[in-house]
Amino acid sequence: MSENFRDTLEAFENTFPDRDYLIEINCPEFTSVCPKTGQPDFGTLTFSYVPDKSVVELKSLKMYLQLFRNEGIFYENVSNRILDDFVAVIQPKQVTLLASFSARGGITSDITCSYQKDA
Amino acid sequence: MSENFRDTLEAFENTFPDRDYLIEINCPEFTSVCPKTGQPDFGTLTFSYVPDKSVVELKSLKMYLQLFRNEGIFYENVSNRILDDFVAVIQPKQVTLLASFSARGGITSDITCSYQKDA
Amino acid sequence: MSENFRDTLEAFENTFPDRDYLIEINCPEFTSVCPKTGQPDFGTLTFSYVPDKSVVELKSLKMYLQLFRNEGIFYENVSNRILDDFVAVIQPKQVTLLASFSARGGITSDITCSYQKDA
Amino acid sequence: MSENFRDTLEAFENTFPDRDYLIEINCPEFTSVCPKTGQPDFGTLTFSYVPDKSVVELKSLKMYLQLFRNEGIFYENVSNRILDDFVAVIQPKQVTLLASFSARGGITSDITCSYQKDA
Amino acid sequence: MSENFRDTLEAFENTFPDRDYLIEINCPEFTSVCPKTGQPDFGTLTFSYVPDKSVVELKSLKMYLQLFRNEGIFYENVSNRILDDFVAVIQPKQVTLLASFSARGGITSDITCSYQKDA
Amino acid sequence: MSENFRDTLEAFENTFPDRDYLIEINCPEFTSVCPKTGQPDFGTLTFSYVPDKSVVELKSLKMYLQLFRNEGIFYENVSNRILDDFVAVIQPKQVTLLASFSARGGITSDITCSYQKDA
Amino acid sequence: MSENFRDTLEAFENTFPDRDYLIEINCPEFTSVCPKTGQPDFGTLTFSYVPDKSVVELKSLKMYLQLFRNEGIFYENVSNRILDDFVAVIQPKQVTLLASFSARGGITSDITCSYQKDA
Amino acid sequence: MSENFRDTLEAFENTFPDRDYLIEINCPEFTSVCPKTGQPDFGTLTFSYVPDKSVVELKSLKMYLQLFRNEGIFYENVSNRILDDFVAVIQPKQVTLLASFSARGGITSDITCSYQKDA
Amino acid sequence: MSENFRDTLEAFENTFPDRDYLIEINCPEFTSVCPKTGQPDFGTLTFSYVPDKSVVELKSLKMYLQLFRNEGIFYENVSNRILDDFVAVIQPKQVTLLASFSARGGITSDITCSYQKDA
Amino acid sequence: MSENFRDTLEAFENTFPDRDYLIEINCPEFTSVCPKTGQPDFGTLTFSYVPDKSVVELKSLKMYLQLFRNEGIFYENVSNRILDDFVAVIQPKQVTLLASFSARGGITSDITCSYQKDA
Repeated sequence: MSENFRDTLEAFENTFPDRDYLIEINCPEFTSVCPKTGQPDFGTLTFSYVPDKSVVELKSLKMYLQLFRNEGIFYENVSNRILDDFVAVIQPKQVTLLASFSARGGITSDITCSYQKDA
Repeated sequence: MSENFRDTLEAFENTFPDRDYLIEINCPEFTSVCPKTGQPDFGTLTFSYVPDKSVVELKSLKMYLQLFRNEGIFYENVSNRILDDFVAVIQPKQVTLLASFSARGGITSDITCSYQKDA
Repeated sequence: MSENFRDTLEAFENTFPDRDYLIEINCPEFTSVCPKTGQPDFGTLTFSYVPDKSVVELKSLKMYLQLFRNEGIFYENVSNRILDDFVAVIQPKQVTLLASFSARGGITSDITCSYQKDA
Repeated sequence: MSENFRDTLEAFENTFPDRDYLIEINCPEFTSVCPKTGQPDFGTLTFSYVPDKSVVELKSLKMYLQLFRNEGIFYENVSNRILDDFVAVIQPKQVTLLASFSARGGITSDITCSYQKDA
Repeated sequence: MSENFRDTLEAFENTFPDRDYLIEINCPEFTSVCPKTGQPDFGTLTFSYVPDKSVVELKSLKMYLQLFRNEGIFYENVSNRILDDFVAVIQPKQVTLLASFSARGGITSDITCSYQKDA
Repeated sequence: MSENFRDTLEAFENTFPDRDYLIEINCPEFTSVCPKTGQPDFGTLTFSYVPDKSVVELKSLKMYLQLFRNEGIFYENVSNRILDDFVAVIQPKQVTLLASFSARGGITSDITCSYQKDA
Repeated sequence: MSENFRDTLEAFENTFPDRDYLIEINCPEFTSVCPKTGQPDFGTLTFSYVPDKSVVELKSLKMYLQLFRNEGIFYENVSNRILDDFVAVIQPKQVTLLASFSARGGITSDITCSYQKDA
Repeated sequence: MSENFRDTLEAFENTFPDRDYLIEINCPEFTSVCPKTGQPDFGTLTFSYVPDKSVVELKSLKMYLQLFRNEGIFYENVSNRILDDFVAVIQPKQVTLLASFSARGGITSDITCSYQKDA
Repeated sequence: MSENFRDTLEAFENTFPDRDYLIEINCPEFTSVCPKTGQPDFGTLTFSYVPDKSVVELKSLKMYLQLFRNEGIFYENVSNRILDDFVAVIQPKQVTLLASFSARGGITSDITCSYQKDA
Repeated sequence: MSENFRDTLEAFENTFPDRDYLIEINCPEFTSVCPKTGQPDFGTLTFSYVPDKSVVELKSLKMYLQLFRNEGIFYENVSNRILDDFVAVIQPKQVTLLASFSARGGITSDITCSYQKDA
């Protein structure tokens, strides 16, 4: 399967590692495919993280998210899997991912999941 | 009566049970009937829940909410009853339901009720 | 069938028949049923008309629109049929009906139809 | 009855009578009473007029509109009657009155009526 | 004086007394009279309360608020007095009333007052 | 090439052919691929048309637009080509297509193209 | 009196006199004084003009408008007088001035006046 | 100097002294003068206070704020000085003043200062 | 001087030359320098044009607009000059340029200029 | 390098040093250059600080931020460096800087960094 998506994500060095600061990245052009209906899903992903030694490289994040374009995956799974990939590559002090999907059948869904590095 | 509405709600397995994360579902097309006047009521229901072992299946939630279309029921009762049904079938760690009803006589009402699983 | 829906519409006398003036009525709580899927549709109807001898009675308009609540009918048909009923009962100098339906499959539809009394 | 309401409206001299210019006055705090139900109605009145020899005095317009506070009168009638009073006292070259009433039974109504002085 | 306004307020039984839940009621069509100038005041009242044994009947709340239509009373007094009446009749576990009045002399005022039942 | 995309579009009979009326369809989830960079493009397509003998079937329109998901095509070309396909299959009296694409390099583009049947 | 206000307005040469083009200038910080009550008035002035040989110098326009800060003058008069001053100094091909004043007694006023050079 | 501005502020008795409640007063028409450039400044002042024995009289607050109309004073100074005057005359349990000034040189400034009566 | 800015603009072939259609391009990140004060100016440029044989290449338009980043030039001049460059290189059937500049001294300016090819 | 940018920042004396109060400064016209692509970046900087003995002089802050106009620097670096400069010159009790950059490749970034003086 597509477990090697995370190889696309790149980190670069955080040049202010002694200060805890927040980076919020908003990606309104996420799209994947519903595995049950084959219909495209559309959503906005928002990453809010406190970097440790690494900061995500924005273009690599864009390329990583585009890998899901033709991937069949449920809302809950795509949200948690992207959080896992982000944590594995960037290793932030903490990160929250909010994934807001557009309406299907008159119903919208938002998934919010977080990671906190052990003290 | 209509006590078996909750049979329509379906759960599927939460594949990330070890992580507490939040799912928010927004349903702007809820309608029921006022038991006193026979007039239709319209509202928006928002479920915010932390899943335990189960996640609600969205299409079954839509079908469940449509069962109230011709049901005569007061605002407070429909809000609490839907919360009870959601808890009984999905058994989340916690859930909050916000039900916002459109104006009647120039007055709008919002009902917010919550459930928290015992620790 | 339901051709007698228009009997519910009531007119009352226009007390300013010598002045052409515009009445716009906005009904955001319209709902009917899709004849193909059985799923409910939701929309906002806006009537803009210049009365001749009659003005529509607002409560009767509300009751008339509620008759479509469990009626299976396509967007184009419901819009044109409601225009026809309005013209038959109220006989305005002119009327435009805008029917805006909420999103289905990520797509929204608006229907605009008009009637002009012959000079 | 209350036909002498218009005595409250005051005009003062238009000091730029040779230039056609537009004055728009927005009154969002209009209230009257429904003659059928006895319930209060609320609306926003907007006057747009080209003055001839007179301009309306704003405080007198406010006092005039307050005379309707406990008056039972239908939407169409109050709109046309206020237009008539304005024309009788101010005698503008032209005037349009838009009266937007707040929702009743989930339905809102706007009335637009105009007057044009003969050339 | 008008101390018996509260007799108009009606309570009905809370059928979910074991669950603390929040009811928010928004009333945008409140109007009273300034006791100093005799000019009408306009405001929006928002009640947020946790019911105990009783829930307020919405139509009675509307009729109760209409009793202030021609009542001369200051902002601070009307807010606190309505809170007192609500507490006396409904006896909620807690309630907050926000009263937002429209601009006078270019200045707007909001009053927020609360009641908490003793534990 | 992909010239047979239009085979996916379906028409059904216009049951009110004697009345000129306007249908506006808004499709906010359009996506294709930039042929130069390989990057995905996102846009909103709005069709406004007066039907003649046929009306477009909405689900077939959705499926048709999804065919462009992995198609490399420039803004101007995709807009004009979709208009051509719509005209060929639906044969409306007139149609306007507005295609609004999201920002690239800080710049957004809207394309508006129209067709008018000869009288 | 203050008839020499217009001396403050400065023009500079229009370097594209052969092309008719529109300049719109929005001044949201206008204030003068009501001559009847002595209370300050606040408004937004918007000039839309087609220059002929001259273009208004923006800083001089700002200084000119500030001359009204402690001037007692009615809405209609200030609007027409500023238009006259602008025409006298800048001599545009055409100009429209929209003056929107903030609410007094719950009522707002907009004045729109125009000038067109003879052909 | 102008230290006697505060004499214009008037208090009247708080008739609900036993209940802590919040009064928020929004004044969007504040203007003073920059002492360095002589240019007018414009801002919105918002007072949020819990009254003790006194409540501010709104018209006196309006007249007090108008005293700054031609006063040269910096943002930080005017905010703190108005807070001091309010505390001296009204003696509230607590008060927060937010002063939001409009853009100068493309930069806007908000000042927030508070006072808390000793327990 | 910088008269060769227009060499940066590139055209590519319009593949639908027989249909008059509208292209609207919105560029919110324009910046130049005020020649009098040396301070930076910021604006949004919107091009609306009907192409003839050529369509503007978007990246070249972006690069062209960046050439003004450190250029000292007045609002009216930059607007008319950019229109001239666009017409010279793209040779559209018609084009309108709207340039909206951000506030300076509390005043904003919009310039709208157009070109129409001779018939 | 450009380490002497901070020499441009000027402080003046805080005349209310005994009161902790908040100053929020919003600078929507920040621009720098991406060091990798040479393309301009645009952003809004918001400083929220509690002054100690000094307050920042607003015009010097504007001139300081303009020094970055042609400076190649990454988002994270510019945010942290500006915070460091502000702390070095103004020495506030606390300060938070929010830097919101406009979209690049369909992705926006916000950086939030803070400084707290040791107690």
